[in-house]
Amino acid sequence: MALCTVYTTHALHSTCCVSTPTKNHLGFHQRQVFFYTHSNKITRSSKCSEISFATGDAKTVVIGLAADSGCGKSTFMRRLTSVFGGAAEPPKGGNPYSNTLISDTTTVICLDDYHSLDRTGRKEMGVTALDPTANNFDLMYEQVKAIKDGVAVEKPIYNHVTGLLDPPELIQPPKILVIEGLHPMFDPRVRELLDFSIYLDISNEVKFSWKIQRDMAERGHSLESIKASIEARKPDFDAYIDPQKQYADAVIEVLPTQLIPDKDEGKVLRVRLVMKEGVKYFSPVYLFDEGSTLTWIPCGRKLTCSYPGIKFSYGPDTYFSHEVSVLEMDGQFERLDELIYVENHLSNLSTKFYGEVTQQMLKHSDFPGSNNGTGLFQPIVGLKIRDLYEQILADSKVESPLQASKA
Amino acid sequence: MALCTVYTTHALHSTCCVSTPTKNHLGFHQRQVFFYTHSNKITRSSKCSEISFATGDAKTVVIGLAADSGCGKSTFMRRLTSVFGGAAEPPKGGNPYSNTLISDTTTVICLDDYHSLDRTGRKEMGVTALDPTANNFDLMYEQVKAIKDGVAVEKPIYNHVTGLLDPPELIQPPKILVIEGLHPMFDPRVRELLDFSIYLDISNEVKFSWKIQRDMAERGHSLESIKASIEARKPDFDAYIDPQKQYADAVIEVLPTQLIPDKDEGKVLRVRLVMKEGVKYFSPVYLFDEGSTLTWIPCGRKLTCSYPGIKFSYGPDTYFSHEVSVLEMDGQFERLDELIYVENHLSNLSTKFYGEVTQQMLKHSDFPGSNNGTGLFQPIVGLKIRDLYEQILADSKVESPLQASKA
Repeated sequence: MALCTVYTTHALHSTCCVSTPTKNHLGFHQRQVFFYTHSNKITRSSKCSEISFATGDAKTVVIGLAADSGCGKSTFMRRLTSVFGGAAEPPKGGNPYSNTLISDTTTVICLDDYHSLDRTGRKEMGVTALDPTANNFDLMYEQVKAIKDGVAVEKPIYNHVTGLLDPPELIQPPKILVIEGLHPMFDPRVRELLDFSIYLDISNEVKFSWKIQRDMAERGHSLESIKASIEARKPDFDAYIDPQKQYADAVIEVLPTQLIPDKDEGKVLRVRLVMKEGVKYFSPVYLFDEGSTLTWIPCGRKLTCSYPGIKFSYGPDTYFSHEVSVLEMDGQFERLDELIYVENHLSNLSTKFYGEVTQQMLKHSDFPGSNNGTGLFQPIVGLKIRDLYEQILADSKVESPLQASKA
Repeated sequence: MALCTVYTTHALHSTCCVSTPTKNHLGFHQRQVFFYTHSNKITRSSKCSEISFATGDAKTVVIGLAADSGCGKSTFMRRLTSVFGGAAEPPKGGNPYSNTLISDTTTVICLDDYHSLDRTGRKEMGVTALDPTANNFDLMYEQVKAIKDGVAVEKPIYNHVTGLLDPPELIQPPKILVIEGLHPMFDPRVRELLDFSIYLDISNEVKFSWKIQRDMAERGHSLESIKASIEARKPDFDAYIDPQKQYADAVIEVLPTQLIPDKDEGKVLRVRLVMKEGVKYFSPVYLFDEGSTLTWIPCGRKLTCSYPGIKFSYGPDTYFSHEVSVLEMDGQFERLDELIYVENHLSNLSTKFYGEVTQQMLKHSDFPGSNNGTGLFQPIVGLKIRDLYEQILADSKVESPLQASKA
């Protein structure tokens, strides 16, 4: 995809190289929303036509990823975008504090950019960033809808360093847009735009252990202040963030291990991939026998693992009254042969070649959690999204000629 | 196989249609041991040559099955012989109290026939039938060895009705000889002759429940007398029968269910098939992934089972210091689709066509335990024995021309 290097645009509702009628009926009225306009730098219309419609006639596929802050969303995003190839990087030459990551196929935007109150504003109002009143859901909805419809937008930037709202940045409609943050499934209108949604659910024990590790060891905070900050966030988290998981098509739960009976330092993890049944373009991964209940300890005669080993579980379940399949991994990998052995026994992975999951995991073996279930399930979710995208694309190609003949 | 209808023979060490030198060096000296001799009824040598060597040049394959009395050995035998086709029946026209069962391929002899003391004798000596002193292991060894070498024998008959030793019956060397009873693996010489050995291990709880069911309901015994009879047998059972399981290549353990937490009436069973690793011509059955540890509840999205359902377990283990694989089934089948679904996920079954285990189970759906793990594992053991027999036969055919060229 060619990117026009245009960073500021001014004329509201003007169009460039856009001919389909969908582009002008959106009724954007927020000041922050800008449509992409003609740039002096772009002269060839052929090139320009690539700008506004990254995916040709196909609409942008929108993925939502919800999680609390400090829960490994950015690692997840790097694993997810890596599946599509190419490095995910901030917009070139833009605000160095941009939260956006762009790669060949995907654009990841951080929903913190839709904070309607900056840090001072929140302090004055006595609300946390988790509170919906501190966020502009109207703008979030309209901009995500615009991108989904193939229209570039000028999205605000929340500067995490200063705590202020910086001038907006231009977001081109990519093939796949990932919106990640605290509230991707909070607003029903935004939720409706999502082609697939993921909730990263870190249990309190693990969250606490991670915070201690990071804030005590790396930032010198006291145990008491960490506990206090977690406790302070909890009511809003429980009220506004946690309930979103009921809408997720896939949930990754991160829990303490059950393999070590007493002493758990939060180092060995039990990770569960909860996959909703009946989601269009998404067929859950399974272990050995689809729809039955299984446990599997791969370590044995053919594979030797060190203590505490690895235990998989798989089976049907219900999750907020939805029928789901759950794949669980407790423990951690030690070596490559463990990885490939496990991948070999999982089905419906949507890989394009033998060992693709293992390849993805090895590519980012330096990422946190690469030897546990997060490291296994996150690239798998990436592969499922690639598959979902390709199915949607194929369907839209089938539909397009029909629509043309109707017109 | 054509059977010569000869029931009495007299001349010791005389031969008929026997040309290989192995037939005359056995040094039998017991009065009960008779070699097959020429009969007036048989005139054609071609037919006669089929008599002494049922398997041509191949030796008879010998299988041992050990179990306590009243533990379903005869049902097991019927399932096992059924795999080879043809009905297993007592020798035609012989002693109606014969314990032998003959089919096209197999001959099953009951080791009670080697009691050296009849019922009165045991009473006088104060020993049970379980006691080795009440059994003639020299004769057992020599006759099994003779049959294995292709030589017919005159085997005594223990009359279970009268408790006396009846006149002997002629046993032709079959393709497969099964010796079943209390002591097939007790005597090291007999044990050495076995190509494959099985121990049917009924747990005390289940044994007790079965005895109550049979002896109280059907025979009108009191609960106290049943308990007393079990207790009386226990020391000898523990001393002489139970230790044989350490030598078995396969053990079928029958235990109470673990699916119903409190109330267990011995009706729902948990059955374990313990299979020794490294046994020539025998590759253990496995579930999904050979050598790893698994549990599997097939009942789920694709298969609906009624309470308490079915649970399988599989994995490596050690058994009397031997490396084994254990396949376990807890619960019982309700319908045919459950059967075929389970068979479909088991590997190394040595079936000749898809669904052969299910077919075998359905053929004898009226046998006791047909809906539980005994009904599943017993035909599987039969299939493994058929496979073992065919491998031995194939090997002997490869070896024979070589031996001939050496001679």
